[in-house]
Amino acid sequence: MLNHDYEEEKIRSMNIHIKIGIVIGYLAVTATFNASAGNLLPYVNPMVGTKSMGHTFPGACAPFGLVQLSPDTEMVPHNIGGIYQPDAYRYCTGYQYDDKTIVGFSHTHFNGTGHSDLGDILVMPATGEVKLDKGTAEHPESGYRSRFSHEHEKAEAGYYSVLLEDYGIRAEMTATERVGVHRYTFPKGTQTGHIVLDLNYGIYHYDGKVLMANVRVEDSCTLTGYRITRGWSRMNYTHFAVKFSKPITTYGCRNNEEVLYKGFWRRFDMTKNFPEMFGKHLTAYFEFDFSDGRPLEVQVAFSPVDCLGARKNLEAETGGKSFDEVRKATQAKWEKELGCIRIEADDDTKAVFYTALYHTMINPSVYQDVDGRYRGVDHNIHQAAEGQTNYTVFSVWDTFRAQHPLMNLIKPSRSVQFVHSMLNHYRQSVHHALPVWSHMGNENWCMIGYHSVSVVADALAKGLVVDKKLALDACINSSNLDYYDGIAEYKKLGYVPLERSGSAASVTLEYSYDDWAISELAKRMKVLDVEKEYAKRACSYRNIFDPLLGFARPKHQDGTFKKDFDLLDTHGQGFIEGNSWNYSFFVPHDVNGLMRLMGGEKRFVRRLDSLFTMRLPAKYFENTEDINEEGLIGNYVHGNEPSHHVPYLYKWTDEPWKSEARLHEIMRRMYRNRIDGLSGNDDCGQMSAWYIFSALGFYPVCPGTDQYVIGSPLVKEAIVQLENGKNFIVRTKHASAENVYVKSIRLNGLPYRKAYITHADILGGGEIEFEMCTRPNKKSAAYEKPYSMTKRE
Amino acid sequence: MLNHDYEEEKIRSMNIHIKIGIVIGYLAVTATFNASAGNLLPYVNPMVGTKSMGHTFPGACAPFGLVQLSPDTEMVPHNIGGIYQPDAYRYCTGYQYDDKTIVGFSHTHFNGTGHSDLGDILVMPATGEVKLDKGTAEHPESGYRSRFSHEHEKAEAGYYSVLLEDYGIRAEMTATERVGVHRYTFPKGTQTGHIVLDLNYGIYHYDGKVLMANVRVEDSCTLTGYRITRGWSRMNYTHFAVKFSKPITTYGCRNNEEVLYKGFWRRFDMTKNFPEMFGKHLTAYFEFDFSDGRPLEVQVAFSPVDCLGARKNLEAETGGKSFDEVRKATQAKWEKELGCIRIEADDDTKAVFYTALYHTMINPSVYQDVDGRYRGVDHNIHQAAEGQTNYTVFSVWDTFRAQHPLMNLIKPSRSVQFVHSMLNHYRQSVHHALPVWSHMGNENWCMIGYHSVSVVADALAKGLVVDKKLALDACINSSNLDYYDGIAEYKKLGYVPLERSGSAASVTLEYSYDDWAISELAKRMKVLDVEKEYAKRACSYRNIFDPLLGFARPKHQDGTFKKDFDLLDTHGQGFIEGNSWNYSFFVPHDVNGLMRLMGGEKRFVRRLDSLFTMRLPAKYFENTEDINEEGLIGNYVHGNEPSHHVPYLYKWTDEPWKSEARLHEIMRRMYRNRIDGLSGNDDCGQMSAWYIFSALGFYPVCPGTDQYVIGSPLVKEAIVQLENGKNFIVRTKHASAENVYVKSIRLNGLPYRKAYITHADILGGGEIEFEMCTRPNKKSAAYEKPYSMTKRE
Repeated sequence: MLNHDYEEEKIRSMNIHIKIGIVIGYLAVTATFNASAGNLLPYVNPMVGTKSMGHTFPGACAPFGLVQLSPDTEMVPHNIGGIYQPDAYRYCTGYQYDDKTIVGFSHTHFNGTGHSDLGDILVMPATGEVKLDKGTAEHPESGYRSRFSHEHEKAEAGYYSVLLEDYGIRAEMTATERVGVHRYTFPKGTQTGHIVLDLNYGIYHYDGKVLMANVRVEDSCTLTGYRITRGWSRMNYTHFAVKFSKPITTYGCRNNEEVLYKGFWRRFDMTKNFPEMFGKHLTAYFEFDFSDGRPLEVQVAFSPVDCLGARKNLEAETGGKSFDEVRKATQAKWEKELGCIRIEADDDTKAVFYTALYHTMINPSVYQDVDGRYRGVDHNIHQAAEGQTNYTVFSVWDTFRAQHPLMNLIKPSRSVQFVHSMLNHYRQSVHHALPVWSHMGNENWCMIGYHSVSVVADALAKGLVVDKKLALDACINSSNLDYYDGIAEYKKLGYVPLERSGSAASVTLEYSYDDWAISELAKRMKVLDVEKEYAKRACSYRNIFDPLLGFARPKHQDGTFKKDFDLLDTHGQGFIEGNSWNYSFFVPHDVNGLMRLMGGEKRFVRRLDSLFTMRLPAKYFENTEDINEEGLIGNYVHGNEPSHHVPYLYKWTDEPWKSEARLHEIMRRMYRNRIDGLSGNDDCGQMSAWYIFSALGFYPVCPGTDQYVIGSPLVKEAIVQLENGKNFIVRTKHASAENVYVKSIRLNGLPYRKAYITHADILGGGEIEFEMCTRPNKKSAAYEKPYSMTKRE
Repeated sequence: MLNHDYEEEKIRSMNIHIKIGIVIGYLAVTATFNASAGNLLPYVNPMVGTKSMGHTFPGACAPFGLVQLSPDTEMVPHNIGGIYQPDAYRYCTGYQYDDKTIVGFSHTHFNGTGHSDLGDILVMPATGEVKLDKGTAEHPESGYRSRFSHEHEKAEAGYYSVLLEDYGIRAEMTATERVGVHRYTFPKGTQTGHIVLDLNYGIYHYDGKVLMANVRVEDSCTLTGYRITRGWSRMNYTHFAVKFSKPITTYGCRNNEEVLYKGFWRRFDMTKNFPEMFGKHLTAYFEFDFSDGRPLEVQVAFSPVDCLGARKNLEAETGGKSFDEVRKATQAKWEKELGCIRIEADDDTKAVFYTALYHTMINPSVYQDVDGRYRGVDHNIHQAAEGQTNYTVFSVWDTFRAQHPLMNLIKPSRSVQFVHSMLNHYRQSVHHALPVWSHMGNENWCMIGYHSVSVVADALAKGLVVDKKLALDACINSSNLDYYDGIAEYKKLGYVPLERSGSAASVTLEYSYDDWAISELAKRMKVLDVEKEYAKRACSYRNIFDPLLGFARPKHQDGTFKKDFDLLDTHGQGFIEGNSWNYSFFVPHDVNGLMRLMGGEKRFVRRLDSLFTMRLPAKYFENTEDINEEGLIGNYVHGNEPSHHVPYLYKWTDEPWKSEARLHEIMRRMYRNRIDGLSGNDDCGQMSAWYIFSALGFYPVCPGTDQYVIGSPLVKEAIVQLENGKNFIVRTKHASAENVYVKSIRLNGLPYRKAYITHADILGGGEIEFEMCTRPNKKSAAYEKPYSMTKRE
């Protein structure tokens, strides 16, 4: 039976509620604003998103660095569905604000993902008896774990500090791209203390995650070692080199592993002062003399290649530097990176804005040694080509939307390296495919689509210089990987059938867009046959629209639509991270065509209206990750990406102003300067990048075009300092919480009557001025509409 | 209670039996001698030692190559002491002659070790139903295993072939240094056939040995992949690249592993035609079309670094070459390598001789890619220094005795690379120590001593050019590794106490010799303080000689001798692989000092006599690996190394001729051209190197001196073609099975009256002529005695 209950005609009678403003929450951790002019760091609040579903980490990192040195709070595998396994979702970055204890400080963390991994090389300082167990949250004293309180915790871009209450140790963290730097100030009068190096710890940990780990005591102040893990990444090689500021006085380890060949163990006491520690379940400790009253500084460098690489990285980035020197240099880097956009706004908005901008500059992460070597997705050791730097952590299903387009705008010289990295991934991939979701030299195939083609097409649309032929080949091959998620059937039938994928409808919609991106790229390169072929494929979305419903509805192999179809259910309906009502709007390349399928523009607008206004019954979200009632606006879910472009779709209609109020509502409700300030996973910067664009007043609805669809800016003023040396200025007149509508636009002083601006408009420098007001400007209906593959009726 | 039963006075009355000649055995597989002049390969019989304790493999390899491509016959882990584990001893090289089935052909095998590992990357061809289990020896049809018969088996240097009876497939093998090459001729009329690539197979296999394995199908004829194992070596990285002569028609795999992250598996059918196979328990198959009647050739290249390295190695060594071309080139290499010694002897002796010479040229094995990269013992990726090549598989406790000295004589340009490799191991070792027993970038610390110092000292004594300062530093550091096997106590007490090592007496004796080698090296380098210090340490052997017994006897920490001491028991007496009676003779650097401790020369000679003549009760050998009654001459055990120099010790006495008869007896009884022709493990060439030297008539009793002690040659004539272009010729007059004694010696035509010749004598070229006879030449008592650290009384 079809669920027609929520068809838009009925919904019009439903309770319409638009709330603008701040929902009162519990006590928020907010940034303190003692910023001097031009000082942006005080507006960055790394605690934002650490509670609930933001999945951000509070620790220290350098922009786009390999190292994110951050406290981990829990991560005890527990019984899920009868299997003892890690909580892959809640502890994506190892830290949850509500936890009361810290296990230690590990060096690698994703920014805001929806699946977990990493947490490599855990360091924990302690006093007293050496404990090599983690201990439990309930009884931290049963291990090396310590209680902590948010009162004694401080997080800045590039700096983190916390008091470990069980030991009275002040722990401070900073980092360069490849080196985590710790400073542990032990309580006054401490004679001896130690650190635990737990190579058996990890995020997404289970018995068997660590394939092998080892530590070598190279000299009294230096360790090297590596471990290989099998977690979300199939094999993650983490090589490290450690430099202590004090000599080790004594050390040892425990390896809870049944070893077949006992030749070593019979010969030596390998548990104490034996400089080569090795095992699948290895935990080591190192004692130091604190009678001089000085803190212990620990530098931990990483390499994807080998320990020699890690040592070189350490020497190059932190060699001979103190904690304070590293912190200062890294925070200066953040200041510089964040300075590419200078805004005027109230302090709270500034905090949300710069925290978001900060979150867009964590992933992708550099994955290459200072000597140019890196481990490819083929696990071979490659030497980077001249002028190239390899990056990893590509959550492409999320980031193709706004994160990569944002980088193409504000960080093109970095972004071009991301594209090089993707193209190298393609060359190294045995599937001859661009990344889907890749990290640390592994493809984990998470989520759907082949959206790297969008990233590549957008980069070329924005003028980034990469090997075009390689780029097009990569896109063509990635979209013809027949065994991947129904591509063969998609090519044959024009849609992915339900028999092939549980997300068949989502996949079909997304392949259609991706194919448009390839067509557009081919067009740009004047490869006409490819352009034509993919332009045809780009229409495939039409094949799964139910003409009766006007919604996307998955089909079976035999061409029939799925029976028992529920438009509002996110699960089991042929969609993923979105129900049909939301997902049906995912035709960013042909909004005009979509409108036709939905029954014309009027019906399209009503449907958008009802999306935001219907009251979604609890059964549709109460058991769903990423969504709670606070994260909903009607049936619109901002915490998941498929809807991110949706509020902008009014811009294709004659009621374009409707976007403007919705955008302000989303910006204010879904982004807060609070620990739970993110309404969903930050997803490697996508959530944050959406905010940056939207706050500036424009958004890349269809990456691969050179257009940004104009929304409604939140900032009073913004200066985008482009890498080409020019400034693009966004100015708003009469900006206020009530003035959410755009009365008029001027570009470089002239009245502007398009619903979009182009990349060239921005790159040329100049100024766009928005006059804001409380009421819609109905004349904007006449503005030139944004790009659509097919014409408006 | 002391065991005095076998003191020499009593033993003189025992039954003395010296047997010379051939004990009748079962049907032997002998080499066929259809050799043309100068054609040595027909004399090499790789089957020698494949039955019982030789632990040699019958397969194909190039001289000193990384690849030994050889059939494996059993290797099913079984219950040992309640634990399901591999038979680490019997299947050291994966093949036992008595087995009736072949599991497949794997690519890495030790030559004749006493502990097992390797067996990497098993390939097995088959027809019919694809079976991914090995099957059992009793029911080979339960898996891919096949029956075979020695009638249809052929082994040559660089070539092996066998008929796989269950499939009617003729399997042929050859190899270059880094590439194994297979040719599988399927039965006439075969339409389709397949090969199994079992990455879950290994020698010394147990559940958990494979940390991770993977295969990538790069194109229809090419695979790459790697696996990491934790066996005897703690982590062995085996990267490979495979080239098939036919395109794969279909392929698949099975991975018997519970995978935590199932993202991949949900998305794809990864079991069939999915080009990236990954897992801890991975077995793959590849099908081919045989309707053209052509055999399948398979080239499998290896790299210690990565798959790119393996591909480069394949391209460089076998790229574009047919099986026959590779076989021809490799057999030409063997011909050339073996040609450095050309002997005249009866065919059987020639077979034993050239088979032995072949066995001395398998390990050490090259462990470096053609591009100069290799994986060090620190597991870092190193680029070899200009002119250096890295080698692995150093079974030093065995090979310091004769294998390395032999290489110093006949292959100095190769041998110097072995020493470079050892010195690089030292530089990379976190212990700052030379190898003890190392393979594939790992130190396994097997057996005792720090005998690499002997290898280094001998190389320098023989004029090999290495960094002398580095060499001396390496020796000094290796001998001061206080936590290693009682070195701290040895330095303090002058002996290793029983409390520290179950082999305390053996260790003390061997450290003493090693220290002498360091002293000698320092002397050569004129570093007087080191010379003096180590000359003192070299006398430490005296500290464990019981003055009452005149035998070595382990001491406790408090200086008292072990109670309940049994001179004949190999176990639990403070010795290893030898009882006190044998081991007490291990003072090769100070035979004169040893004679004094044993009560003077006469008593020393009587003791040697009784060693060879006493009847050892069965209880002393029946439960001992490496020894059976056939391997004994009295109490003398040639199958274990500690006694290898012992038959030469008469040469320090006034009854030197007694060596001569014993040597002939050992050469004839312990070395045969038979499948069980080795009386003990070949031990990476040490057993064979003993034979080569002894058959030529001289032996390096004390490596580190420039002397070879003269024995009694077996060959009629030998031409040693030295790398310096000169020939050193050994000629015997009246050589026969009865004429075991040397009547007279001439060096370059002049009568020679020394019990030794020097390295310089040989390097200079020339000729040594032995006149043989049936009776001892008593005048030889007056010959100049070989080197001893202290003077003769």
